[in-house]
Amino acid sequence: MKFAKIPMATIVRLSIYMRALEELLDCEVEVISSERLARQCGVNPAQIRKDLAYFGEFGVRGVGYRVSELVGEIKEILGLNRPWNLAMVGLGNLGSALVRHENFLKHGYVFTAAFDSDPEKVGQKLPNGLTINHVGELEDIVREREVHVGVIATPPASAQSVANQLVLAGINGILNFAPVQIQVPDCCRVENVDFTIKLDSIAYHLSVAD
Amino acid sequence: MKFAKIPMATIVRLSIYMRALEELLDCEVEVISSERLARQCGVNPAQIRKDLAYFGEFGVRGVGYRVSELVGEIKEILGLNRPWNLAMVGLGNLGSALVRHENFLKHGYVFTAAFDSDPEKVGQKLPNGLTINHVGELEDIVREREVHVGVIATPPASAQSVANQLVLAGINGILNFAPVQIQVPDCCRVENVDFTIKLDSIAYHLSVAD
Repeated sequence: MKFAKIPMATIVRLSIYMRALEELLDCEVEVISSERLARQCGVNPAQIRKDLAYFGEFGVRGVGYRVSELVGEIKEILGLNRPWNLAMVGLGNLGSALVRHENFLKHGYVFTAAFDSDPEKVGQKLPNGLTINHVGELEDIVREREVHVGVIATPPASAQSVANQLVLAGINGILNFAPVQIQVPDCCRVENVDFTIKLDSIAYHLSVAD
Repeated sequence: MKFAKIPMATIVRLSIYMRALEELLDCEVEVISSERLARQCGVNPAQIRKDLAYFGEFGVRGVGYRVSELVGEIKEILGLNRPWNLAMVGLGNLGSALVRHENFLKHGYVFTAAFDSDPEKVGQKLPNGLTINHVGELEDIVREREVHVGVIATPPASAQSVANQLVLAGINGILNFAPVQIQVPDCCRVENVDFTIKLDSIAYHLSVAD
């Protein structure tokens, strides 16, 4: 399925709507109004309708959205009606915690490879059964295990060379936890996770509220 | 310092500009054009000028921005010219990794308290010298140690009650790693970190590129 020129902010909000809808599903809610869904997601109802309108007509006038139907539709839009294979690079404290984090699997993201450059770590078995491989084997293993997305949790100084290796291995999606900007070709999408940027927003809020 | 009606997207971009500028400082770059800074941050130069214009006049026409000056100005705008005290709640794999993560300290965020409900963990000493306290002591300790921001890394089912305790303790800023929406009074700002939302954007990119 291809949709032209969808703003990235819309895509991010679709993920947020989907998580709220999944929580509702867990509570066996079958139908929800756009007003209530909007309140739950911290947006206004018009925003939800506008975001969904890029992809077709959803919901029943005067009734709302059927929760499980809308979850299915959003999954199809985002390409989440299939599993995605991840490779973790960097098994320090953060990388090791992330590999164990059940939230990935819950949303269809499966770690199928793990790499580190530390000879002490290579060969160790992770709780999910994966064995840590040396980063020198990255290209071969990434191709072999059909990895789709590389997750970088190395120290900042190694992040760019790891990104280069991932791109060479044919990877077009990187989730980067190293607090450094990495450069990749246009065909590769990088998403950065820097917790301290979120903290800066909180600090600003606390400062202006003082 | 108070500025009215600054879009949150501007605040987030200021953090991103600041991190790029700090990298430049490390490389002893003294002056940078808005074009180059923009390229490094993945925005257009007009955006940088517009974001900064909310707060005054910066940069020298035909020269660019003096890097260390602009870092100082952005720190003042965001309220980062002072340290902020954090409390970690939930010392599982992720919480333990985060408490050790040097990126917090690098940006002036200091963990001054850590809480867990597991009696096995209470009393344990963390590498930064902090002792884990029982979550029942949260309110007293948060006040005593002048915690400004609560960081939640508990299982989803406990996140709301921890948020309630933080709010009762006078906390107005929460960084939430639990994959669940938490409800707080309007005076409290919550920022959610959900890695899988970033992965959804990557999955979408890979799906439409197929």
